[in-house]
Amino acid sequence: MHRNPKGTRDFYPEDLLQRRLMTEAWRRVSLLHGFDEIDGPTFEHLDLYTIKSGEEIVSQLFSFTRPGGDDRYALRPEFTPSLARMYASRARQLPSPTRWFCTPTFFRAERPQRGRLREFMQWNVDVIGDPSPDADADVIACAIDLFRAFGMNADRIAVHISNRHIVAGLLTDTGVADDHLDAALALLDKKARMSAEDFQREAAAIGLDAQRLDEQLRQTQTRLEQGQGEPASDHEAHLMGVIARLDAMGLADWRRVDLSIVRGLAYYTGTVFEVMVAGERAVAGGGRYDNLVELFGGPPTPAVGFGMGDVVLSLVLADDGLLPAGADLLERLSQPMPTRPDAFVVPSGNEEAEAALPGVLASLREAGLHARRTFKATRKLGKLLGDADACHARFAIIIESATHATVKNLVAGDQREDVPLSELTSVIA
Amino acid sequence: MHRNPKGTRDFYPEDLLQRRLMTEAWRRVSLLHGFDEIDGPTFEHLDLYTIKSGEEIVSQLFSFTRPGGDDRYALRPEFTPSLARMYASRARQLPSPTRWFCTPTFFRAERPQRGRLREFMQWNVDVIGDPSPDADADVIACAIDLFRAFGMNADRIAVHISNRHIVAGLLTDTGVADDHLDAALALLDKKARMSAEDFQREAAAIGLDAQRLDEQLRQTQTRLEQGQGEPASDHEAHLMGVIARLDAMGLADWRRVDLSIVRGLAYYTGTVFEVMVAGERAVAGGGRYDNLVELFGGPPTPAVGFGMGDVVLSLVLADDGLLPAGADLLERLSQPMPTRPDAFVVPSGNEEAEAALPGVLASLREAGLHARRTFKATRKLGKLLGDADACHARFAIIIESATHATVKNLVAGDQREDVPLSELTSVIA
Repeated sequence: MHRNPKGTRDFYPEDLLQRRLMTEAWRRVSLLHGFDEIDGPTFEHLDLYTIKSGEEIVSQLFSFTRPGGDDRYALRPEFTPSLARMYASRARQLPSPTRWFCTPTFFRAERPQRGRLREFMQWNVDVIGDPSPDADADVIACAIDLFRAFGMNADRIAVHISNRHIVAGLLTDTGVADDHLDAALALLDKKARMSAEDFQREAAAIGLDAQRLDEQLRQTQTRLEQGQGEPASDHEAHLMGVIARLDAMGLADWRRVDLSIVRGLAYYTGTVFEVMVAGERAVAGGGRYDNLVELFGGPPTPAVGFGMGDVVLSLVLADDGLLPAGADLLERLSQPMPTRPDAFVVPSGNEEAEAALPGVLASLREAGLHARRTFKATRKLGKLLGDADACHARFAIIIESATHATVKNLVAGDQREDVPLSELTSVIA
Repeated sequence: MHRNPKGTRDFYPEDLLQRRLMTEAWRRVSLLHGFDEIDGPTFEHLDLYTIKSGEEIVSQLFSFTRPGGDDRYALRPEFTPSLARMYASRARQLPSPTRWFCTPTFFRAERPQRGRLREFMQWNVDVIGDPSPDADADVIACAIDLFRAFGMNADRIAVHISNRHIVAGLLTDTGVADDHLDAALALLDKKARMSAEDFQREAAAIGLDAQRLDEQLRQTQTRLEQGQGEPASDHEAHLMGVIARLDAMGLADWRRVDLSIVRGLAYYTGTVFEVMVAGERAVAGGGRYDNLVELFGGPPTPAVGFGMGDVVLSLVLADDGLLPAGADLLERLSQPMPTRPDAFVVPSGNEEAEAALPGVLASLREAGLHARRTFKATRKLGKLLGDADACHARFAIIIESATHATVKNLVAGDQREDVPLSELTSVIA
């Protein structure tokens, strides 16, 4: 009897419905948050992966040539290099920021184990071209909403947020030399998977005073978590900005500062984060990679994003009894997909309207509405309404103050003024 | 600047929406026709392809091993071997017939050209375990409905239906020896792409009298097309059965007998067909492969199906100006997907009810309703309603006569008797 290759899966109808449950939930949340779907090829030129990671990565990839051809290819192990390549080759034509998501299949030639397969699906959400903490908060909010859509709450799921620059600064302060910094960050990343003795030994070898670092991390973390005093650096200011933005979206319960997070991938620059179940099991992770687009031939471009795999997600949902079955599952997969934007939101220019923006977007999305916003500095209303039309939004919402908005129906062509912000969702839905 | 591998595609947001338009249309039509979605791994053991086609197929595949491993793998060039493997390994547990569809990505290491890429998507629809002409008609009707959903009509699109056994019989009648039959079928398959001289020369070499064969093909074709007289063989009876069933579904305008179709793949057994645009360009093709499941270790199992690629389909739709854009496209992708069956249809056992079945199913599907039917010989109503419940259908329709049915609402638990068949769609929708 023939079998599927080890570490891959056959999806019979009941398996495929469960897979659809994940991929459609990913797609729905991405659309509600105003991300556009993309995809790249299933295999790339091998050098797309070796350029950043060196030849040693080849042992973790499925690589091949074409019969009669010389080019070396590899099945994609992750999406970020493809995304950086795609962005770089069209950087001038693409909107700023560019907001992309995808839900493709990936491949790793590693030993299969619980939660790790050789072929798996992964959701990627990225904001490219926006250096502000708002962009970090935007992708993090999208990750959180996926778990909210499945009925999980903040007792169970939290985003642990850190910043590699802050951790690197503390490493330097506690005596790690510059040429040992990368090794020290890599060591911290695998700390939880090592014995205390092994960690101590490797730390000592690179001049890392583990006890002193721990104290420093804890103090800094508490200070940042509580928002006490002035930030000690631009990096601290950035992290505090991410936290403040998430809080303005009503997500204060879902986030914490956790400087033990450094992430394994070498391309991360500032912010790094992991979505944790019960404080211990990572179900998604991401961060800033502000140098990657340039590395692939594009202009210098800040970027931030995350990935979430289907294998771990389905294990978590199954553990929590949150996988629907039978008629419930079929009904869930029959819901319309919010592909067309319901609302394009424009703050009218005053500070109050700007401050109300995150809350307005969050409440529209919570009501299942696909909400986009302008990212333009201009407040020329005609131009902004043109943007709303260009993305085929059904409504434009102009936030006039902390409490009221004007709602323009772009399909019917009429408008309502002085709509209380609390009534926006009912006016539109 | 880095580029995607030759023959593959980057899907930017506007490209991805067009891809979704194809894959969602495929999925919608498959669901309306009561097929269940499946998928296999993106790569398979290489021998899944060489077993049937020999080592020479390796030159058309992307094949590879895992670093440190011995197993040879290949990116899937088509779905049928995976489907036969998946069916074979669970044959005993699966329903009879099993009705599967999928919309995955495939790979061929050939020279890219218009309509043919190295990575492409393909829709596959298959009925496994049903030897009757009804199964052939079921998959053909599903293919036709895809084009109807895009607004194409029978002036432009037609399914050309043939049968390899009938053609082989005529080859034998006109003097081709048994050991030249496969070569003769392969020659007929490529006839349209050859010069008349080359064809004559190769035909002569295997004892094929081209002129005499042409006459025989034409006569047989006319006879079968017009349904004149008694079939001359079981194979002719089967082909006439397919035609009769399509006509009962209201698809007489969309089908023709065309014995010039033999299809290239060696695994086809009886029925073969191609969906042609303007009588000349194939946009989908398929047929019976009654030996393949057994070849992969399963029990002897009849099967029939087809494949339709996204590249050719999108060219045809673009040529005909049928690709929506802007708000229309977004609205189209926002329609709910009919994942839950709307109706489970049971003919009550008399001949009239049986004869009304294809028309009832066709009209439900034309109204956008997901309609399934029983395939059981039993007429024990309790058991059949249990099947309707098991697939979570919202309604059961018991066809009582040529004109009336009983409709049971399986969610509310009530029923209506003596519903005219012409009112079924409005009662359910």
